[in-house]
Amino acid sequence: MMMIPSFAAGQWVAPDSGARPIASAVTGEVIAQAGNNALDVAGMHAYARDVGGPALRALTFHDRARMLKALALHLTEHKQKLYDLSFETGATQADHAFDIDGGIGTMFVFASKGRREMPDAQIYLDGELEQLGRTGTFQGQHVCVPLQGVGIHINAYNFPVWGMLEKFAPTFLAGVPSIVKPATSTCYVTHLCVQLMLDSGILPEGSLQLISGGVGDLLLHTDAQDVVSFTGSAQTALSLRSTPHLLENSVRFVAEQDSLNASVLGRDAAPGTPEFDLFVKEVHREMTTKAGQKCTAIRRIMAPAAHVEAVIEALSARLGKTVIGDPRDPATRMGALVSRSQRADVLEKVALLGTQSERVFGDPEGFTVNGADKEKGAFLPPMLFHCADPDRATHLHDTEAFGPVSTIMPYRDADHAVQLLNRGMGSLVASVITRDGDFARQMVMGSAAWHGRLYFNNADSMAEATGHGAPMPHMVHGGPGRAGGGEELGGVRGVMHYMQRTAVQGSPDILTAIGRQWVPGASENTGGAHPFTKTFHEVQLGDTLYTPSRKVTLQDIETFAHFTGDTFYGHMDEDAAAANPFFPGRVAHGYLLLSFAAGLFVQPDPGPVLANTGLANLNFMKPVSPDDEIKVRLTVKKKTPRTEEYGQVRWHVTVTNQDDEIVAEYELLTMNAYA
Amino acid sequence: MMMIPSFAAGQWVAPDSGARPIASAVTGEVIAQAGNNALDVAGMHAYARDVGGPALRALTFHDRARMLKALALHLTEHKQKLYDLSFETGATQADHAFDIDGGIGTMFVFASKGRREMPDAQIYLDGELEQLGRTGTFQGQHVCVPLQGVGIHINAYNFPVWGMLEKFAPTFLAGVPSIVKPATSTCYVTHLCVQLMLDSGILPEGSLQLISGGVGDLLLHTDAQDVVSFTGSAQTALSLRSTPHLLENSVRFVAEQDSLNASVLGRDAAPGTPEFDLFVKEVHREMTTKAGQKCTAIRRIMAPAAHVEAVIEALSARLGKTVIGDPRDPATRMGALVSRSQRADVLEKVALLGTQSERVFGDPEGFTVNGADKEKGAFLPPMLFHCADPDRATHLHDTEAFGPVSTIMPYRDADHAVQLLNRGMGSLVASVITRDGDFARQMVMGSAAWHGRLYFNNADSMAEATGHGAPMPHMVHGGPGRAGGGEELGGVRGVMHYMQRTAVQGSPDILTAIGRQWVPGASENTGGAHPFTKTFHEVQLGDTLYTPSRKVTLQDIETFAHFTGDTFYGHMDEDAAAANPFFPGRVAHGYLLLSFAAGLFVQPDPGPVLANTGLANLNFMKPVSPDDEIKVRLTVKKKTPRTEEYGQVRWHVTVTNQDDEIVAEYELLTMNAYA
Repeated sequence: MMMIPSFAAGQWVAPDSGARPIASAVTGEVIAQAGNNALDVAGMHAYARDVGGPALRALTFHDRARMLKALALHLTEHKQKLYDLSFETGATQADHAFDIDGGIGTMFVFASKGRREMPDAQIYLDGELEQLGRTGTFQGQHVCVPLQGVGIHINAYNFPVWGMLEKFAPTFLAGVPSIVKPATSTCYVTHLCVQLMLDSGILPEGSLQLISGGVGDLLLHTDAQDVVSFTGSAQTALSLRSTPHLLENSVRFVAEQDSLNASVLGRDAAPGTPEFDLFVKEVHREMTTKAGQKCTAIRRIMAPAAHVEAVIEALSARLGKTVIGDPRDPATRMGALVSRSQRADVLEKVALLGTQSERVFGDPEGFTVNGADKEKGAFLPPMLFHCADPDRATHLHDTEAFGPVSTIMPYRDADHAVQLLNRGMGSLVASVITRDGDFARQMVMGSAAWHGRLYFNNADSMAEATGHGAPMPHMVHGGPGRAGGGEELGGVRGVMHYMQRTAVQGSPDILTAIGRQWVPGASENTGGAHPFTKTFHEVQLGDTLYTPSRKVTLQDIETFAHFTGDTFYGHMDEDAAAANPFFPGRVAHGYLLLSFAAGLFVQPDPGPVLANTGLANLNFMKPVSPDDEIKVRLTVKKKTPRTEEYGQVRWHVTVTNQDDEIVAEYELLTMNAYA
Repeated sequence: MMMIPSFAAGQWVAPDSGARPIASAVTGEVIAQAGNNALDVAGMHAYARDVGGPALRALTFHDRARMLKALALHLTEHKQKLYDLSFETGATQADHAFDIDGGIGTMFVFASKGRREMPDAQIYLDGELEQLGRTGTFQGQHVCVPLQGVGIHINAYNFPVWGMLEKFAPTFLAGVPSIVKPATSTCYVTHLCVQLMLDSGILPEGSLQLISGGVGDLLLHTDAQDVVSFTGSAQTALSLRSTPHLLENSVRFVAEQDSLNASVLGRDAAPGTPEFDLFVKEVHREMTTKAGQKCTAIRRIMAPAAHVEAVIEALSARLGKTVIGDPRDPATRMGALVSRSQRADVLEKVALLGTQSERVFGDPEGFTVNGADKEKGAFLPPMLFHCADPDRATHLHDTEAFGPVSTIMPYRDADHAVQLLNRGMGSLVASVITRDGDFARQMVMGSAAWHGRLYFNNADSMAEATGHGAPMPHMVHGGPGRAGGGEELGGVRGVMHYMQRTAVQGSPDILTAIGRQWVPGASENTGGAHPFTKTFHEVQLGDTLYTPSRKVTLQDIETFAHFTGDTFYGHMDEDAAAANPFFPGRVAHGYLLLSFAAGLFVQPDPGPVLANTGLANLNFMKPVSPDDEIKVRLTVKKKTPRTEEYGQVRWHVTVTNQDDEIVAEYELLTMNAYA
C-alpha cells in the first residue's frame, strides 16, 4: 500500500484520517491512499508566494529555461520508474509515450523556446515600440512581468505526468511558483514525478508544491496575481469558475474541459487513396489510445455520405484486431480505463448515445480481456456508433463518453461538414484528412472559430504528422465554448498566461533602463574604443560608433553593377530611372550602400566580433544619388548570450546622407566572444 | 425633449412606456427620455449574428480598415454637432477633446494599423511557422479568424463617444458586428454619434446596433462566439460576470471597472526641478478633467515624505485657480458631474475618506459656480486629502470617489512606493514622474504585475507625452484585480479579443492554401516568364525563379574588400580566419553574397518591379569559401496592396552552394506595380 504524501511548504506531509483509497485500474485492488484533512493549504499558498515567487523572479528567463532542461534530462534518466508505476493506471507502454515522454518533451520545448525566443532578462518585451509623439521623445513598449502569485494547477486523472508538466513548464519559465493538485485516482504517478523533480535539487525552494487529495479552501486565498488552471469535466469547471471569491477578485481562471472532437474524411479521400487509409488509422488510434480517455480523442467521425459504409468496414476490421488487456503485456494494444466507476460512467453515456445511433462495432457484454480479470479491472472494448441523421440527433454532439467510443455520421458537402463540426459548440481539436487546399480553407473559414486546433493530414505530411490527439507544446491547446474557453501551451503564448502584460510609456532613456534594450533616441555612448574591439561582456547598450562619410560616385555604381551583374535600369539608365516613382534618376544599389556601410564601420583586425551572422528589418528609406555622401551610426541595441563562448549582439544601424536624412535603417547581428 | 431611440435590426425604435427621464448635468432639467420595454433584443442578437457577421466576414481586414477611416473622416466633419450636444453631460470643450476627438482618433489609429499590420485577407496569421517534424513536411501556424457572434458593448456614462468607439473600432476591424448599450444618463450623445455613423452609409448592414435603455435578457442569448465587454462599476461587473448563462457557456467577458490609480513623484523630482512642476500639472489635470469622472484619474498621490508639503502647496494653488461652472463658458475649467445622484455618491465617498485622511483643499459647502445654478447642476469643487499614515489607512486604497477627489500620502523609499502602489489591488494606470532610470525600473519590477499601464514622464518627454489619463489606442487599456482583469486596445492585440486563435497544423501546401502566404516546402511554380516581369496582380504565391550558379573566386573577395573597404580578417587572412570558430579559412563577405545573389536574379529592364525596398530575417547559415558556387531560389511568399498604384511583394530567398546547402536565407521586399 502506497501512502501518497503531499509536499507542502518544504515538507512531505503523509495522509491522515482524511485519506481516500485508490484502486488499480487493472486489478481493482486498493494500491494506495492519499488525502489529508489537516493540510495547511493557506500556508502552502503563502509559502509559494513569499518564498517561491521571489526566488524565481530573481532569475532570468534563460536561467529558468536551463533549469527546465536539466529537469527534463533528470526525468529522462529516471523515466523507467514512471513507466513501471503507470501501468497501474491502465496505461500501456504506448500510452506512456504520450504521458511520460510527452510531458518530458514539453519541458524540453519550453526550455528551448525560453532560450531562443525570450531574453536573458527578467522582463519580456511584447511587440514593437510604439512612437506616441511626433519626434519620438515619448514612446510606448508593452512589457510582461511574472505574476506575483501562484499557479494553481488542478489536473485530470488521464495524464498524471504530461498534465502536470504541460502546466508546470510555462509557469516556471514565467517565474511563477506552482501548486499542483492531480486527480486523486492517479496521483501516485504524479507524486513520483514530483519526488524525482524535487530530488534533483534543481528547483528553487517554494517553486513546486503538491497536493495529494483535496484542495480544501485553497481557492479562497487567491487574488488577481494567481492563476487557477483546471483540466477536467465541465461540471467541475463550472463549479470552480463560479466560486464567488474568484469572480469578486478577478482571479484568472483557465479551463480545459469537455470536447466533442471530430475528424472529417475529406471529400477527395475516397477508398483507395492513401488519405482514406490514413483516416482509418488515425481514428483507430484516437479511439484506443489511453482507452479513449483523452480530451482530444475523436468522438465524432464525419465522412462523405458515399464513404460511410467503407469507413465503418475498414475501421471495424482494425478495431477487431485490438487486443484488450493487461497493459504490461506487450501484446496488449488497449489497456483499462482508470476505474470501475469511470467504466460505469462510460456505459451510461453509451446507453444514451444508443438511443439516437446504432452500435455497429463493439459489445461491452461480449469481449475478451488478455491477461487480466475482466470483472475486476476497468476494461471496455472499443465501440463504434453510426448515426444516419446527424442533423436531427443531439446526443452525439453533446455527450462525451470518456472512453473508447466514437460515432460516425455522413456529411453532404463542405458547408454541411462545417455545420456538423460546429454543432460540438466548441472543441479542442478537429482533424481533416484531405489533400484539397480549397476544402481545407473552407473548413478553417467556417469552423476555426469553434476550435482551438485544426489538424490537417494527408499523404504529403503523414510521415511527420504528430497525430490528431497530441497537443504540441509549440501550438495552443484549449478551445472555446464547451471546451472551456481556455488556452494553454503555444510556446511563449503559454508563458504569458502567468505574466502580466503592462503598457509602459516614457522617454527613450527610461524605456532603455526598463527593458534593457536600447531605444532609438536614448543616450549614446560615443567615447572610448571602437565598439567592435569590446567583448560581449564589455560592450554596453548604447555604445555607439559614428563613422566618417564616403562619397558614392557614379563610377562606384558602374563598378558595382558590372562586378555583381546587377544592372537594373534604376542604377544604369538615367531616363528610365527618372520615370520610376521611387527614383529621382540613377541611384546607388541598396546592396552597395550596405557594403559601403560595412566598409565604414568594420574593424579589420581579429577581435571579439567573430562574425556578422545576419540582418533584420532593413528598410531603404530614401534613394542615394551619385555624389551623395553616406555615413553610418551603429549602436548596441541588445545582448543575448548564446553558447558557452559567445553571445549575440544586435546593433541598431542608420545610414544617413549629407543632409542627415536616413537612407537606410536596419539591425545588424554579430556574434561576440565573451573574452 | 429628446426621445432617444434604439437602432434594432435595421429600424429605429422609439422609447415606449419603459422610458426613463434623463436630466441635464448643468441645469438639472429633464432633457431626454430613453428606454423601451418591448425591444426585441433576441432579434437584435440574431440580426447581428446572421446579417452583420456574414457581411463583415466577407470583407478583408484592409476593407474594414478603409471603412473605419472613412467613418472617422465622416465623424470629423460632423463633430461640432457632437460638441454642441455634449455640453449637457457637464463636459467642457477640453473634455470633448478626450471623448469626441479621442474617440475619432482611436478609429484613425485602428484604420491605420489594420492597413499596416494586418493582411489584405480574411485570416490573420499569428506568429511564425512552427516546424513540427524533421524535414518540414508537417508544420504549424496559428491563425486568427473572426468570432461568429456579436460584440456586446456595455459602456459607462463618462465617455459616451470614446467609450463606444474604442470598443467598436477593434470589433469592426476583427469582422464582428457590435451591439452598443451606452449608459442611459448620457446615451443621447452616443445616439447622435451612432446616427451619424449610420447616416454615412459606410457601414455594412447589421454591423452596428444601439440599445438606448436597458439590455433586457440580451445576455441570455449569448454563446462562446460572443464577447460581452463592460466598462463601469465593480458591482455591476460582478453581477454581469456571475450570470450563470455566461459561466455555463464560456462566454467571453471583459471588464474595465474600478481603479485607484496612483501617481508617484520620483525620489529625484524635488521642488525646483522641471519634474516637480510637471507632476503638479499632471495631477491637477487628472483631478479636474471630466470633473474627475475618468477611470484613469489619479486617486492616490505619492510623494517622498520630504516633499509632501510642497506638493500640497503647489497643487492647492493650482486647484484654487480652477474655474468651476457652465461647461459652455470658455472661462470654465471644470464642468459638472453627470448628475446630482453621482454628486451625492461622491460626497458619500468623500465622507468615508475623511475618516482616515484630512481634507487639505476644497470644500463642497463653500465654492463658487460660474454661470450656472449650483443647486440644480451637479457641481463639486476639486478636493484634496492628505493621509499621513498610508500603511494603516485603508479607505484611500479601496474607495474610489468618482469625482474631482484625490489623496496625497508620503512614501519612504522605492520599496515603500511599490507597496503603496500595489495596495490598490490592481489598477488601470500608475504614473511616475522621474528622470531616474533605476527608480523607473524598480517601479516596473515591483509594480507592473498590478497595473495595466505604467506611465513615465520627465523633462525629456513632456513635450510629447500623452498624459497619465489618456488610454492610447496603441497601448493596452485595462488592469488586473480591482480594475476588472480585462484588456482592451493595444493595437492588433485589441482586435484579437474578437477573434479566435486557432492552431493549424498541416503540410506546406495545405498551410499555403489556408493562410494565403507561401510556406517553405510548398509547391513552386517555375514555369513561364521571369517573375519580375509579372505585375502585382499577375504574380502568384509560389511563383519561383531558380538562377544559374556563379563561382565566387578569391579574386572576387579581394576586389570586393578593396572596393568597399571591408577588409575584415575573415575575408583577407587565411590563418586568422581559420582560427575563428565560424570560418574554415578565408570566406566571402555576406554582403558580397547578397550582391551576387541580386546580380543573379535581377531583371535589368524596366518592368513591374519598381524597387527593392528592404530585406527581412537575413541569416547567414554557412560560410562560402573561395571557388564555392552559389545560386538562388526566389519564391513569392506574400502580396500586400499598399497604394493605388503598387503593392508589396515579399519573396522568400535561399542562396545555396554547390552541395545544395543553404548559405543564406532571407526575405526580399519589392514594390510591384499593379499594371
